[in-house]
Amino acid sequence: MSEVAGRMSIQVGAHYLEKEQGGRGVLLGGVPGVAPARVAILGGGVAGINAAQMAVGMRADVTVYDINNARLAELDMFFGSQIKTVYASRLAIAAAVRDAHLLIGAVLVPGAAAPKLVTRDMIKTMKRGSVLVDIAIDQGGCFETSHATTHDDPVFEVDGVIHYCVANMPGAVARTSAFALNNATLPFALKLANLGAEKAMSANRHLAAGLNISGGNVRHRAVAEALGLPLKEK
Amino acid sequence: MSEVAGRMSIQVGAHYLEKEQGGRGVLLGGVPGVAPARVAILGGGVAGINAAQMAVGMRADVTVYDINNARLAELDMFFGSQIKTVYASRLAIAAAVRDAHLLIGAVLVPGAAAPKLVTRDMIKTMKRGSVLVDIAIDQGGCFETSHATTHDDPVFEVDGVIHYCVANMPGAVARTSAFALNNATLPFALKLANLGAEKAMSANRHLAAGLNISGGNVRHRAVAEALGLPLKEK
Amino acid sequence: MSEVAGRMSIQVGAHYLEKEQGGRGVLLGGVPGVAPARVAILGGGVAGINAAQMAVGMRADVTVYDINNARLAELDMFFGSQIKTVYASRLAIAAAVRDAHLLIGAVLVPGAAAPKLVTRDMIKTMKRGSVLVDIAIDQGGCFETSHATTHDDPVFEVDGVIHYCVANMPGAVARTSAFALNNATLPFALKLANLGAEKAMSANRHLAAGLNISGGNVRHRAVAEALGLPLKEK
Amino acid sequence: MSEVAGRMSIQVGAHYLEKEQGGRGVLLGGVPGVAPARVAILGGGVAGINAAQMAVGMRADVTVYDINNARLAELDMFFGSQIKTVYASRLAIAAAVRDAHLLIGAVLVPGAAAPKLVTRDMIKTMKRGSVLVDIAIDQGGCFETSHATTHDDPVFEVDGVIHYCVANMPGAVARTSAFALNNATLPFALKLANLGAEKAMSANRHLAAGLNISGGNVRHRAVAEALGLPLKEK
Amino acid sequence: MSEVAGRMSIQVGAHYLEKEQGGRGVLLGGVPGVAPARVAILGGGVAGINAAQMAVGMRADVTVYDINNARLAELDMFFGSQIKTVYASRLAIAAAVRDAHLLIGAVLVPGAAAPKLVTRDMIKTMKRGSVLVDIAIDQGGCFETSHATTHDDPVFEVDGVIHYCVANMPGAVARTSAFALNNATLPFALKLANLGAEKAMSANRHLAAGLNISGGNVRHRAVAEALGLPLKEK
Amino acid sequence: MSEVAGRMSIQVGAHYLEKEQGGRGVLLGGVPGVAPARVAILGGGVAGINAAQMAVGMRADVTVYDINNARLAELDMFFGSQIKTVYASRLAIAAAVRDAHLLIGAVLVPGAAAPKLVTRDMIKTMKRGSVLVDIAIDQGGCFETSHATTHDDPVFEVDGVIHYCVANMPGAVARTSAFALNNATLPFALKLANLGAEKAMSANRHLAAGLNISGGNVRHRAVAEALGLPLKEK
Repeated sequence: MSEVAGRMSIQVGAHYLEKEQGGRGVLLGGVPGVAPARVAILGGGVAGINAAQMAVGMRADVTVYDINNARLAELDMFFGSQIKTVYASRLAIAAAVRDAHLLIGAVLVPGAAAPKLVTRDMIKTMKRGSVLVDIAIDQGGCFETSHATTHDDPVFEVDGVIHYCVANMPGAVARTSAFALNNATLPFALKLANLGAEKAMSANRHLAAGLNISGGNVRHRAVAEALGLPLKEK
Repeated sequence: MSEVAGRMSIQVGAHYLEKEQGGRGVLLGGVPGVAPARVAILGGGVAGINAAQMAVGMRADVTVYDINNARLAELDMFFGSQIKTVYASRLAIAAAVRDAHLLIGAVLVPGAAAPKLVTRDMIKTMKRGSVLVDIAIDQGGCFETSHATTHDDPVFEVDGVIHYCVANMPGAVARTSAFALNNATLPFALKLANLGAEKAMSANRHLAAGLNISGGNVRHRAVAEALGLPLKEK
Repeated sequence: MSEVAGRMSIQVGAHYLEKEQGGRGVLLGGVPGVAPARVAILGGGVAGINAAQMAVGMRADVTVYDINNARLAELDMFFGSQIKTVYASRLAIAAAVRDAHLLIGAVLVPGAAAPKLVTRDMIKTMKRGSVLVDIAIDQGGCFETSHATTHDDPVFEVDGVIHYCVANMPGAVARTSAFALNNATLPFALKLANLGAEKAMSANRHLAAGLNISGGNVRHRAVAEALGLPLKEK
Repeated sequence: MSEVAGRMSIQVGAHYLEKEQGGRGVLLGGVPGVAPARVAILGGGVAGINAAQMAVGMRADVTVYDINNARLAELDMFFGSQIKTVYASRLAIAAAVRDAHLLIGAVLVPGAAAPKLVTRDMIKTMKRGSVLVDIAIDQGGCFETSHATTHDDPVFEVDGVIHYCVANMPGAVARTSAFALNNATLPFALKLANLGAEKAMSANRHLAAGLNISGGNVRHRAVAEALGLPLKEK
Repeated sequence: MSEVAGRMSIQVGAHYLEKEQGGRGVLLGGVPGVAPARVAILGGGVAGINAAQMAVGMRADVTVYDINNARLAELDMFFGSQIKTVYASRLAIAAAVRDAHLLIGAVLVPGAAAPKLVTRDMIKTMKRGSVLVDIAIDQGGCFETSHATTHDDPVFEVDGVIHYCVANMPGAVARTSAFALNNATLPFALKLANLGAEKAMSANRHLAAGLNISGGNVRHRAVAEALGLPLKEK
Repeated sequence: MSEVAGRMSIQVGAHYLEKEQGGRGVLLGGVPGVAPARVAILGGGVAGINAAQMAVGMRADVTVYDINNARLAELDMFFGSQIKTVYASRLAIAAAVRDAHLLIGAVLVPGAAAPKLVTRDMIKTMKRGSVLVDIAIDQGGCFETSHATTHDDPVFEVDGVIHYCVANMPGAVARTSAFALNNATLPFALKLANLGAEKAMSANRHLAAGLNISGGNVRHRAVAEALGLPLKEK
């Protein structure tokens, strides 16, 4: 789903940069003779890479920020002179935020709250009508000013900057997402159907790790803690 | 302006393919494992090429149709295996319309009404939730079912197909368009300012061709005819 | 050798699509104005990637099918909008077979018989004069209708579909293959020459795993079983 | 048709380089670790460019020779570091012939016999099992050793070099060629059908230039001369 | 020769940006995690395009400025998201100069003095250790602060900015330049040798335009004016 | 730092190939009609890849040599038909050295002396004015004829071949290198600052491995051996 969200983030960003949507009225890729918009992508993981692919494809001026040097080297290898990669020091992030027309928050730390990389003070330095998209909103968001929104009412404005923080972005392209999800889960479903639940979980620890309750006992630590029930791991 | 409209056509097409906008819920480029959407672009002129650049950039499955073989060869040279080029026979157009998720009408004949290449019967064969964008709407549109719309109310539906037919597409990215327009007109403005109107028009026939009225006489045939006044060419 | 076979598969496929060879008479890449042929590659491993490189290079319309989502994501990253990647569900494979002009079977499971992914019923849906190349034929082939052939008599026809199932494809480009093989085996040869067999095998377990007989005893399980002799592992 | 022939020339070249076809046994693109074959293309016109596209696509080491510097600059712009361009001095051609594994003759001078750029002495310097394809054979060929062949018996050998000189190369991919031809001639056919022959020829001088006989008179100089009949131009 | 000069301009620029040469100590392409240098190229003609190719190749952040919109569109088509194209208004040039690490003057107006696009005041805004290369120096240069230098003493400094203004840049790569020059002049030499001077000039007006003196008379206006002798055109 | 050195190696190589620097007077990328220079890169690690990126970017004819087949396959995947990859047998290296205009030594074995791959006898076969750059000079160099030089006096000549063997290449682009170094070390510095030395080293074994002396004892084997002091590991 990170792939869907990453790719969509540029599409929605381009949309809200349109004048009728309250945006700055710039075309992501510019046209010959008119410079393109600047897109800053915070985080070079799966979501960030997919965002970069779309932003480059739409001919924006793209920079990706990360603190993982090996990852930045990989991105540099793949994208060549089509993107810039910059180490995500606090100083670099502040400059990125100030200059960007479109700012993508793609810092997802698996199983943890996203770090608040961008403060409200930084947001204040952005141009009016700029747009930010917080892909990490499901984990709390990586902008201080973010709060989750829905597809019915997807954006709000803070300090003249449009915030798109829809918690379930892939829902907008439900058909594509359903296929993607199916591709990811089908192998597990087939294992369950062919082997039965017991054997399937013995054979595959990823599957076993997803078990919440069995035999009248809570088997999953997080569920036990959330519900205040005793945990009995298998 | 054809460049702006061509590039925007894919951006708005992607937007209206989203489920919340009434579209089919497909992501233009798909994701790994899920096939991309099919984009058919009718016309390989400036608008069509710019549309193709964006559609390829967003990783759609793109085919461009034209009747100019030399132009198709140029596109093939530029885009390589990233697009398909097909001669725009009636049969090929009918198949293109039927299969496309996003259909771009980019057939602009300078100074003439756009030909109605796509009939309502063809539109009926499209999947529900497909989207078409008529870039040629300023010249009457190249789909039988098109009629001009505005940025306030940009789309309507015919036979389950979303029609985006905004007459002034570049207005949505006013800042980019203003610069582009300025680049195109600045040389004329400088000539007028430096030489005065008379000399500037003598020196530049493109400028002279734009003259409507001077010395109390109508100098432009179309204006004279439209207003029922006598024409007095210089 | 998978690299050689993968690259050759497209070259032989293009050849047998020629009319004089009994094929459909289509040029893999088409020409400007005429759509390219569709190439479906089953399996995105080394052989499949090399086939994809050549098919893209010859400007065909290429789709790669695999059940490994991570691998599909890698291919998508490398090839961008030049190929489509689709999860290899049974449904997707059936559609792929039906539509393809050239079908490449590149499903190689190391040390195991290739799975019969494509049934005869699927083959029957293909257009007359289509071509399939079974790279997995050394392991039994991944099409139900495959049986091994030789360079002297490389193809046969089933239901109007040309089958190329040469068991030793790299032999056709013996010079290239000899160098490739040499590159792969030279390090072992040098170790043997420099250290002697005993030390070389102690130092390198890959080498040791290749030992069949020593000191009058069979050292390799498969050989012992095949010959009905006692195994004495070192 | 030059596009079809240019693209096919690489495909047939790759085929005859196979060992079973009498060729040198090299794979056009090599594999990682084994250098690719060298392809020399004489002539950077439509046929030459299309040959270069395929040869690059199959990962060969490609050089294009021409005496038109502007054309070489265009090719350099398009292909970047993927091909080398060299001015076609006699010295350069001799070196090209000597080093090439696959030599493409694509020097087509419209309406004139192709110049014999490559002498038999040069051919003698080639490696045994090298292949040459003479696309210009319809106009007499651009190799001294060429003579026209057919799809039934397409090749012959001179000094150990395989010569492919089929006069009607596009016939091998009849389906693709038929569509391509149709695309090129359809506009004329439509004009004839809509306007009648007289008006159509008045309206279109390309069409008129094709008229051979009308009103009992020979209208075309070449036909008149060939048949020894009086010419009566319209 | 514009091609040689354009390509060399980036190579010498990269060299003088090194610390030991007095430059700013930045690597043109940066490295992963460190932003590349900014290269501004004034003029999108042959020299400018060749400079852009090298600058992109070395992974710099490249912008090309020109007042010819059609040319900018061509560059955009060729380079895609690898360069930015901006209309060369005075404002845009001032900003370009201020921000650039490497500034290339490639504004060559055939047969005329190069316009002084960049004033000393603009140069003053550049960072210390920046470098400019004036390819137009043979025609007077396009920077106010330029004056011609030689390969023996190629650079000088104004306001902390290194100026490379060698009048005969291609001399540095004499071997490549000699071949290039030969390619350009060989056709004329062959004509002269085959036809004799008189006939060759009759047959080719480019050749005839180069005649200075014949039959005891000065035939070339510029030569006549320069020497104060009477002109007698043929 | 390997990235900086790899990228710089091509830049300095191009510089010393200039005639005024004693080089052969060839432009790395040639120009249309004039073949590019041949660049041979020994070693496909980080330094070698970065050298290849720049050499390809400057349009040279690039071949990379390595004995790691998997690595060559990766390079082939990334660079496609833009480079050639060849297994680094002694024979292949000898041919590479003989033919190269620019030879890059990028064979770095971590923590060991670089192997002397290229003998003086091989160097003798190179053309006068060719250039070699020994990136491995910090580890003793990979050419028999190398000895370390400085930025003040960077090159020397052996058998007519210019040797660039500066031990601290990244120093030439100090600003870029400082940022790169900072990016690599900042995480360790932050750990030290936040946790104190003791805890930081407990938490991070890379950090701990860098400790030389603590509590009056030598903690690092190499330091102890070098100084003849007792080692007391923690």
